[in-house]
Amino acid sequence: MGFTAIAVLVALLQYFFFGLQVGRARGKYGVDAPAISGHPEFERYFRVHMNTLEQLVMMVPSAFVFAHFVGDSWAAIAVAVFVVGRFIYFRSYVADPASRGLGFALTALPTLVMVIGSLIAIARVLIAGGTLA
Amino acid sequence: MGFTAIAVLVALLQYFFFGLQVGRARGKYGVDAPAISGHPEFERYFRVHMNTLEQLVMMVPSAFVFAHFVGDSWAAIAVAVFVVGRFIYFRSYVADPASRGLGFALTALPTLVMVIGSLIAIARVLIAGGTLA
Amino acid sequence: MGFTAIAVLVALLQYFFFGLQVGRARGKYGVDAPAISGHPEFERYFRVHMNTLEQLVMMVPSAFVFAHFVGDSWAAIAVAVFVVGRFIYFRSYVADPASRGLGFALTALPTLVMVIGSLIAIARVLIAGGTLA
Repeated sequence: MGFTAIAVLVALLQYFFFGLQVGRARGKYGVDAPAISGHPEFERYFRVHMNTLEQLVMMVPSAFVFAHFVGDSWAAIAVAVFVVGRFIYFRSYVADPASRGLGFALTALPTLVMVIGSLIAIARVLIAGGTLA
Repeated sequence: MGFTAIAVLVALLQYFFFGLQVGRARGKYGVDAPAISGHPEFERYFRVHMNTLEQLVMMVPSAFVFAHFVGDSWAAIAVAVFVVGRFIYFRSYVADPASRGLGFALTALPTLVMVIGSLIAIARVLIAGGTLA
Repeated sequence: MGFTAIAVLVALLQYFFFGLQVGRARGKYGVDAPAISGHPEFERYFRVHMNTLEQLVMMVPSAFVFAHFVGDSWAAIAVAVFVVGRFIYFRSYVADPASRGLGFALTALPTLVMVIGSLIAIARVLIAGGTLA
């Protein structure tokens, strides 16, 4: 699980960095807690952080299950694509929310590959009459 | 962990489906990103997705811990109840937010059973003088 | 993983308790679903729950990785600090959002220690030519 763990931890640090940007945007655009709206620029940083949270909830468990049933290196590569995709998402969303498609696809896709890939791998073990550890 | 993994992956796919409904509702009700409010129908889809996120954060780790300390099949059954409950939640919330009680209970309950059940199982191991792996 | 599992489950129960407070505040301050704003007091409870969710997504996987590569007891201690910090965060945020700094630091810090500590521990294994299990 080592390489997957490294990649997931890097994704979590990236998410922490996005959270810091939200805090910075609170000060810059004068949006005090508990408000989460009030300035369109602030809302972009807020949504990047929130959407990354939404994606991580699906990506992190999928990565460890995929590492277990398919392979540590393959899971680590998928998570690396996720991290690059999220960086593109951050850059493009802050510039123009309408341009967020590519970055979104580059994070949703590796996660879906890991979810579907894990289900197939587990099904093949079961069909072959094997036992799941 | 195999059956629990399958059930959790299905719950994550269901969550992904709820996310797609939010995107579809953005177009249908004219709520462009980064806005997360502005049309009551859109807000229902948004809240279903968000509430499922809130629940998954608690359900997924509980399921794997419960599978480890109590049993793979029991955890998979609890997660299956969660998935059915979430589908009822989705259907009823979109129809009328005030009717979301049953679906909510059917997802909160299996999660609480897994959290409390795991704590009891771990406590019993410790009291019996066993070691935790 | 036993002590880490106990500490994480307690953190999840605390998070569930914060969720119940949001439901209670909905009734008390007359903010019906699907609205998530409309009364400043309600928004405090809502943001405490949401911010705890944001933190848990990073804390829970970090705790299990840290337990695996550094040690079960150390991870459990870090998670215990997190739980105490979250309780201070809850109390201070509801009293005055501007005073949330200490509670926030006491939850962000143990999580960062676990993320960075895990990365260092894994790097040391790799540098020593060891294999990651």
